[in-house]
Amino acid sequence: MDPLSDTLFALADPTRRAILARLAEGEATVNELAAPFDISLPGVSKHLKILERARLISRGRTAQWRPCRLETAPLQDVDGWLTDFRTLWNDHFDRLETYPGTMQANDDDTDRSKP
Amino acid sequence: MDPLSDTLFALADPTRRAILARLAEGEATVNELAAPFDISLPGVSKHLKILERARLISRGRTAQWRPCRLETAPLQDVDGWLTDFRTLWNDHFDRLETYPGTMQANDDDTDRSKP
Repeated sequence: MDPLSDTLFALADPTRRAILARLAEGEATVNELAAPFDISLPGVSKHLKILERARLISRGRTAQWRPCRLETAPLQDVDGWLTDFRTLWNDHFDRLETYPGTMQANDDDTDRSKP
Repeated sequence: MDPLSDTLFALADPTRRAILARLAEGEATVNELAAPFDISLPGVSKHLKILERARLISRGRTAQWRPCRLETAPLQDVDGWLTDFRTLWNDHFDRLETYPGTMQANDDDTDRSKP
């Protein structure tokens, strides 16, 4: 897979996203990362391998602890990919602000101001 | 899967991301979407089903054409999930701006100003 697809695939799992959220607060060992989850250490290791392959984390070389560290570069690539689309919803909000009547006119179902 | 995982999984494919980029320019039929890709119509349909299941696209009801339309809400959810991480790399750049010497000091390999 291409790197961006690798990243998005790695992010497509709630446990892996929770691991990254934990690592956003600082480095952690595999045991520390496994603690909040109801999964086995091998289960966590499998998730870490997928995150490491996508370069979303790196592992320290300090003896057997090998603390995990978040690497933000692939997340910045996702952020960059979203840029073109972000203008779409920003434009949409801009139009709503410029022509607020448009929203009301298309909103008959919830218009409670009518008698 | 949870909705955000569905979205990220659907995005983890370069053809599906290219389809979304095309739809960012406006609605398109399956034939129009298939044209730039070297894959069969059934192949494109399979991608569209994955995008539709993740609510990234909706299909029109106009006879057999059923034009596809981009739906940005799931992309906004990805954007929202990135928010906490975005502060990490913004903080990093802020530090580099505040202490520009730090970058240079750690950048010996590419420092060509030395004799």
